[in-house]
Amino acid sequence: MPKIGVLLSGCGVYDGSEIHEAVLTLLELDKQNCEVLIVAPDKAQMHVVNHLTGEVMPEEERNVLVESARIARGAITNIDSLNPTELDALVLPGGFGAAKNLCDFAVAGAEASVDTAVARLLRTVHEMGKPIAAICISPAVVAAALGEINPELTIGNDKATAEALEAMGAMHFQCPVEGFHVDKKNKLISTPAYMLGKRISDVHAGISNMVDALLDMI
Amino acid sequence: MPKIGVLLSGCGVYDGSEIHEAVLTLLELDKQNCEVLIVAPDKAQMHVVNHLTGEVMPEEERNVLVESARIARGAITNIDSLNPTELDALVLPGGFGAAKNLCDFAVAGAEASVDTAVARLLRTVHEMGKPIAAICISPAVVAAALGEINPELTIGNDKATAEALEAMGAMHFQCPVEGFHVDKKNKLISTPAYMLGKRISDVHAGISNMVDALLDMI
Repeated sequence: MPKIGVLLSGCGVYDGSEIHEAVLTLLELDKQNCEVLIVAPDKAQMHVVNHLTGEVMPEEERNVLVESARIARGAITNIDSLNPTELDALVLPGGFGAAKNLCDFAVAGAEASVDTAVARLLRTVHEMGKPIAAICISPAVVAAALGEINPELTIGNDKATAEALEAMGAMHFQCPVEGFHVDKKNKLISTPAYMLGKRISDVHAGISNMVDALLDMI
Repeated sequence: MPKIGVLLSGCGVYDGSEIHEAVLTLLELDKQNCEVLIVAPDKAQMHVVNHLTGEVMPEEERNVLVESARIARGAITNIDSLNPTELDALVLPGGFGAAKNLCDFAVAGAEASVDTAVARLLRTVHEMGKPIAAICISPAVVAAALGEINPELTIGNDKATAEALEAMGAMHFQCPVEGFHVDKKNKLISTPAYMLGKRISDVHAGISNMVDALLDMI
């Protein structure tokens, strides 16, 4: 039974993990009989966003690990307590939390810096030769953490976002919502999900196809 | 294209909608080409629970509509603005929010009272002869709102919970996680989901089967 890490960044598309992408990842991994280890950093969110209005709630403070625990139904591990050598692969769902809490790509673009524990996790998994899957905007975390390996990634079709990825050392490839891009050399796989998708069923198709391909890479 | 209401109660199993159940409901309705209208009451949550520790956060206040908007990616309607005659069916995902924010079954048991707007919505949909689907703990909302029609419901296998439902006028039927119970006379359908299920893939099977059967009842 492969053991797959799922790295969350909060709970909600505008300030945390994109909830549909995270849940559909958990569904597909469970359908394939994987053991899943959900993990998140224990730190304050960059923002709390009112998802009804889209406005930042400046008075509000929330913790990435505590909010991610909502998606995990409490079954979550602090990234600092994780032994990455346990993992056979790592998946990063999308949502602005990936670009706000795992790294600061949402505000710093190509100058993004990555959370120390997140960078260490990605480097370790990569150096072990284990595959990493990145959904939606989370290829930005991979590019920011591992730009020097010139990762091949897809992040939808927004030109400025793709250019910022390339400025960090990545090579960008467009692909449809139900598809995925594989970087064979670096054992990376990515799917655009809500960067392109309008419907949850389309996003599900892409994540389902990506999970199948990820498990073949182990 | 049938138009289906999905009534949320927040965002997180311990104080709002159970996130997996809500997302899997949205997935299955979209796969069946339904138009989905997500709706929630604009009111304070009964509790905010830290999902990492399971403890109530007494200082924290959150709004049911605003937090439900996280699952809806912002595309949500205030229950007070909804015209129920638009709907062909209504689905209630589970989570403690159903028993804390839509009604107060979590603290009042068989003496539960129902949020006024929620009670009006359930009564109107029922009186129009349209079907209502209830997942996990949310059959408690149906029993509390519509006990006088003696609804047939399933709510897992916890004896005390089933007895409290029956004390409100319901008849309880056990059914497995991948199954559902249909009350043909009253056009109600229910599935136990995480009241019984241990795995997201089992919960998905039950919700998928229930959505198929619900659409056949329209």
